[in-house]
Amino acid sequence: MSSTATGPKGLEGITAANSGICYIDGDQGVLAYRGIDIHELADHSNFEEVCYLLWFGRLPNRSELQELKLNLARERKLDASIISLLRQAPKHVLPMDVLRTTVSALSYYDPEEKVNDHEANVRKAIRLTAQLAYVVAAYDRIRKGKPLVEPDRSLSHAGNFLYMLNGEIPSPTAERAFDIALILHADHELNASTFAARVVAATLSDMHSAVTAAIGALKGPLHGGANEAVFRILEAVDASGADPVDYIKGMLAQKKKVPGFGHRVYHTEDPRATHLRTMSRDLGESSGNPKWFEISRKIEEFIVSDRKLNANVDFYSASTYHTLGIDIDLFTPIFAVSRVSGWTAHVIEQLNDNRLIRPRADYQGPAYPNRYVPLEKR
Amino acid sequence: MSSTATGPKGLEGITAANSGICYIDGDQGVLAYRGIDIHELADHSNFEEVCYLLWFGRLPNRSELQELKLNLARERKLDASIISLLRQAPKHVLPMDVLRTTVSALSYYDPEEKVNDHEANVRKAIRLTAQLAYVVAAYDRIRKGKPLVEPDRSLSHAGNFLYMLNGEIPSPTAERAFDIALILHADHELNASTFAARVVAATLSDMHSAVTAAIGALKGPLHGGANEAVFRILEAVDASGADPVDYIKGMLAQKKKVPGFGHRVYHTEDPRATHLRTMSRDLGESSGNPKWFEISRKIEEFIVSDRKLNANVDFYSASTYHTLGIDIDLFTPIFAVSRVSGWTAHVIEQLNDNRLIRPRADYQGPAYPNRYVPLEKR
Repeated sequence: MSSTATGPKGLEGITAANSGICYIDGDQGVLAYRGIDIHELADHSNFEEVCYLLWFGRLPNRSELQELKLNLARERKLDASIISLLRQAPKHVLPMDVLRTTVSALSYYDPEEKVNDHEANVRKAIRLTAQLAYVVAAYDRIRKGKPLVEPDRSLSHAGNFLYMLNGEIPSPTAERAFDIALILHADHELNASTFAARVVAATLSDMHSAVTAAIGALKGPLHGGANEAVFRILEAVDASGADPVDYIKGMLAQKKKVPGFGHRVYHTEDPRATHLRTMSRDLGESSGNPKWFEISRKIEEFIVSDRKLNANVDFYSASTYHTLGIDIDLFTPIFAVSRVSGWTAHVIEQLNDNRLIRPRADYQGPAYPNRYVPLEKR
Repeated sequence: MSSTATGPKGLEGITAANSGICYIDGDQGVLAYRGIDIHELADHSNFEEVCYLLWFGRLPNRSELQELKLNLARERKLDASIISLLRQAPKHVLPMDVLRTTVSALSYYDPEEKVNDHEANVRKAIRLTAQLAYVVAAYDRIRKGKPLVEPDRSLSHAGNFLYMLNGEIPSPTAERAFDIALILHADHELNASTFAARVVAATLSDMHSAVTAAIGALKGPLHGGANEAVFRILEAVDASGADPVDYIKGMLAQKKKVPGFGHRVYHTEDPRATHLRTMSRDLGESSGNPKWFEISRKIEEFIVSDRKLNANVDFYSASTYHTLGIDIDLFTPIFAVSRVSGWTAHVIEQLNDNRLIRPRADYQGPAYPNRYVPLEKR
């Protein structure tokens, strides 16, 4: 295979696509959607605007934003068969397995199941973004034996999610905090789940196949699953009664990896962590329970000074989500509630200028030809 | 992003992993599993042996093969909830969408849903290989309103599939032909579906997430979906009454791509096509209906001479499967019935020496910083 260029393991630093969606400067700690800095978006924008920006390449004007909100509201519904499927899932099942299966099944009831053109895929992006939030909230209600909550057209996407999850209109602080969390998690270039979605889409398969694949990838503890792992550490620290730094030193002494630190792309602080730290602190203070923020802060200070590793997007999302009253095993599904906007934007972009994504492997097995030996001679 | 090496589009020629599973020499037209030439395996082996070879790295001895066959027989069963899920799928739904959803749901009933170690993954590979064939056969029976057929422990994996699909013990010729088709499709290095499976597995997600992603990728017409597209052309040629070459010339004149020809990796004949051509011819003769083979052969001769493109694995699998009495829209699911062996082998290999697969994109969007403009000024 002399024509095969050797790439580093895990494709680190290898360019796999051209993209106009996400600008990242890992040395300067810059993240921008369509060139707009994530700090400006977190401070001034909302998730619906960010969806428009990711899908259409620019911020919407007033009527475009209004139309998108209307479309999201219209698509915020689930076929009765999907609700029935959620009810059938055994109670011990991981929510990410339920989400993956349910999103795959949404294709059955999609009015454009067999259409894969640009316009249909934009509609599927809107539909899946609306439906995915509903699925996560509905499954949590169902597994807890609570009645489903119908969405409220007067609420934002963030507000609706918290309302459908908790059955109460969220406080403005909680809604805004969750909205910012959705903005911060919406896209991150060719992260593993987005890359999986593009690999699937590039075969000219379909949007549901791509998003289903992405959910499966996001589940992994080296990707979206890390935010759940972070909170399990915070809980363990709290339960042990130990000083957080001593607890972490104990983990490191046992060669255990502390989740929520370091990032393949950033060599400085993950710009999303900056916002999530502030949110975790503010929510802790306003809820009168600053414990999880304080444990987090002590762990972060130690890891930054001792290991020279910075907190990533997962570290402070753990304490933030917990303070918003969200169960641990929903942290990764909630990541999907946001990231579906980026996944679908990347599928649309991939199909605009498609080529099958098909790399090579460096063969390191038994030398060819390795002879077939008949069964009686083995 | 000065540290980012630029890769060709679609990662063509880029090494994304080390692998000891599949040896391919695209210039010489060589395909080998664990170094054993595909021609030797097609002539002398069977699908169960090939599964063992892919999963364990060498051919089994008599007792190892016996044990694998027993395990496959034991796992050739579906939870009643899975059958119920198959019955709930609306009749218009694509079988690949049903397969993707059902395999995802199989995780609910997997006794090792939350275990991701090597031994559990080998068991999941066996389980999924047994179950996936059952799902494809059962769904076809269900959508046709026919009673399900219980597997027969005396039959091979190939024989069982045809038996569960058709309700009749297959002829030795049909069973052997299908067995060879399963051998030929079992693995092909980092094809798009296998690569999708590895991207998902590398996040330390799980086997069901990886295989679900792979099914979504295989569905695409640039990948597994091509065998269905080939048969639609054969049908169209037959229905038109035209000479096959004239029909294809007409397609080319309209800039239409003829599916089943050319391959990213092979610059000579796809070695799998050699076997499938013979099978298509022999099955056509033995069934007394050589029409589909003859149309295929005329198209192939024309494309080879006129376009210098060789038939790939999809071209003769179309007429072969049709002659075996299999519906067109099951051709790609049947590809999955075989390829699940390779997908699972690759997941196991990926996890033996894992690193997150996370490439970069070459940013080509609006220049950073692109300022956030408030809504009232847009």
